[in-house]
Amino acid sequence: MNVEGRHYRTIWTEGEGAGEVLRIIDQTALPHEFRVLDLHSVADACRAIREMWVRGAGLIGATAAWGVWLAAREAEHLSAEEFPVRMAMSMEALRVTRPTASNLVWALQRQQKALAGLCGAEAVAAAHAEARAIADEDAEFCRRIGQHGKALIEAIAARKPGQAVNILTHCNAGWLAFVDHGSALSPIYAAFDAGIPVHVWVDETRPRNQGASLTAWELGRHGVPHSLIADNVGGHLMQHGMVDMVITGADRVTRCGDAANKIGTYLKALAAADNGVPFYVALPSSTFDFSLRDGVREIPIEERSADEVRVMSGALLDGEGQSCGAASVRICPEATNARNWAFDVTPARLISGLITERGLCPASEEGVLGLYPEQK
Amino acid sequence: MNVEGRHYRTIWTEGEGAGEVLRIIDQTALPHEFRVLDLHSVADACRAIREMWVRGAGLIGATAAWGVWLAAREAEHLSAEEFPVRMAMSMEALRVTRPTASNLVWALQRQQKALAGLCGAEAVAAAHAEARAIADEDAEFCRRIGQHGKALIEAIAARKPGQAVNILTHCNAGWLAFVDHGSALSPIYAAFDAGIPVHVWVDETRPRNQGASLTAWELGRHGVPHSLIADNVGGHLMQHGMVDMVITGADRVTRCGDAANKIGTYLKALAAADNGVPFYVALPSSTFDFSLRDGVREIPIEERSADEVRVMSGALLDGEGQSCGAASVRICPEATNARNWAFDVTPARLISGLITERGLCPASEEGVLGLYPEQK
Repeated sequence: MNVEGRHYRTIWTEGEGAGEVLRIIDQTALPHEFRVLDLHSVADACRAIREMWVRGAGLIGATAAWGVWLAAREAEHLSAEEFPVRMAMSMEALRVTRPTASNLVWALQRQQKALAGLCGAEAVAAAHAEARAIADEDAEFCRRIGQHGKALIEAIAARKPGQAVNILTHCNAGWLAFVDHGSALSPIYAAFDAGIPVHVWVDETRPRNQGASLTAWELGRHGVPHSLIADNVGGHLMQHGMVDMVITGADRVTRCGDAANKIGTYLKALAAADNGVPFYVALPSSTFDFSLRDGVREIPIEERSADEVRVMSGALLDGEGQSCGAASVRICPEATNARNWAFDVTPARLISGLITERGLCPASEEGVLGLYPEQK
Repeated sequence: MNVEGRHYRTIWTEGEGAGEVLRIIDQTALPHEFRVLDLHSVADACRAIREMWVRGAGLIGATAAWGVWLAAREAEHLSAEEFPVRMAMSMEALRVTRPTASNLVWALQRQQKALAGLCGAEAVAAAHAEARAIADEDAEFCRRIGQHGKALIEAIAARKPGQAVNILTHCNAGWLAFVDHGSALSPIYAAFDAGIPVHVWVDETRPRNQGASLTAWELGRHGVPHSLIADNVGGHLMQHGMVDMVITGADRVTRCGDAANKIGTYLKALAAADNGVPFYVALPSSTFDFSLRDGVREIPIEERSADEVRVMSGALLDGEGQSCGAASVRICPEATNARNWAFDVTPARLISGLITERGLCPASEEGVLGLYPEQK
């Protein structure tokens, strides 16, 4: 992804040795400001995940992986006895930042394995190498998802020559949600880059508006035609033949194909099923939780602060509608309580297929294990 | 409904003779400010409907009816030839303010009949009497809807003694949407007033946030326990048994029971059907359009300004989270386009029943005509 002519990932390091710093894009400032932040400590990394400076399945995993490197650097001076104790505490601090995304636990488990038996400078180097590998793999897997998903878009385009393929997406599963490329948006970028006409319906994604603020921003930077809609609109569009397919990302997918994703995804899947619109979930293998079967019953759903619902942030507009800084407004009575679950689970029966780095598969245990036979 | 100890309707007149003024509550200022506006002319009435100072099926109808009275007063001096021409123009101006709500056309047709062959002071008096009758009838019909709907809530309460009945509603179909009592909220007020424990899940209702700003305000004033949620949340709640029933209002219902209501209602109906949650639509007979059968194909759906999606208004918060005036914030990139359909249609097959002033009926032609045999 390019921003003002420069290629960015969502997380990267700059410098060498003791001077090497970890950098992220502050996603809470988008789309109004493009701000790069430095993370200096594992506490910074925890805060970045918890406060959603970074978010999205893949990027949460990569940030946790790089956070382990920061933790190792902070603990480098400790003895061989003290080091693993401190590292276990740091990993636990990272683990509890957000409960739903699979990639977080998966990245920490990879780091745990990579650091087994190591301490000091050796451990720091190993943590760095593993974080780098996780980030590179995330970007590469997302690139492959794009290629596999592009074929689906191509097939629809072939059936309506000269017309744009209308794709609805919910939340942000673009390059901002991963290290690069994205999951749900990767096929769209691949199709667009190949000259296939596409138009994206962007769900605003209340309460945090990741669609309005991040997906619209990403697509705009890349030049992909899109229209922002309220989350309520998708069903109406599908009833009137204005959606050719839905692609969303996922935060955790069970071995049977149930998919936890941003709250509201389930409602779009119901509408797609009711109107015969194909509904795809795109994910790299790091988002599978092969230990779970029944997503609705087993995937923990994060409940976040009521103020995310009660208060909206954005670019403050003056009387002429010109932007004049940032501001927050409360949209309900002061006394009103709100509840704020961040994810819901779409049952596999509503999913037309899963788009992974290994290709497309049905959302079923048989389908998933067909692509990932090592998990049998 | 009481506001600060005084009983209000949403539209009323004060004074006598030439000094009689039409008053409304400015619903765009709620919940942050309770502001009463005077409407002096039919142009004022048109603007009040178009700009949504008043909104909601019943209140749009009542405002149109009172608007005809204002028009007659303005045209009182015209000759018997000129008067009906001017009145036809005024009624057309009122008719085109909003395309979806049935009550608007219904109220204008009633006024047209009431004024047939009249002009001058006689016409003014007739328009006043008819507007008054329409408003009184709206309030009375909504009161009856409350009594019929209360029985449904009572039946659920009997099955879970000591626990609150959880009712989800979308948009505002409370007393603010009618002249008094409301449609969807009337059964809830009736149940609450009868001592039945209820808790309301209030959909915020993007893009205009009628749930967050109006329903939460109304329920709060009446003391009814409620929680504000993003529109995306209802499916998750239903999957986890946290919704006992859904009640929404409607803007137009066909003779076969298809219901146009605020955009997003269809998605909640799908989730209710998928989880075995009863889904009711409450409406007075003025909301039926007996001339239509297939709601998805035949009911015109209003598309409104993109800025309703792009820009959010509310109480500006200072650094301490204290309110310091009103403000608007843009939530997407400046260049982002948005589309904004205001309603969708819920097919009758997803509706458990219609709650009308004459009682409950199935959402089917047979059911509707069983209650309204004069429409056969």
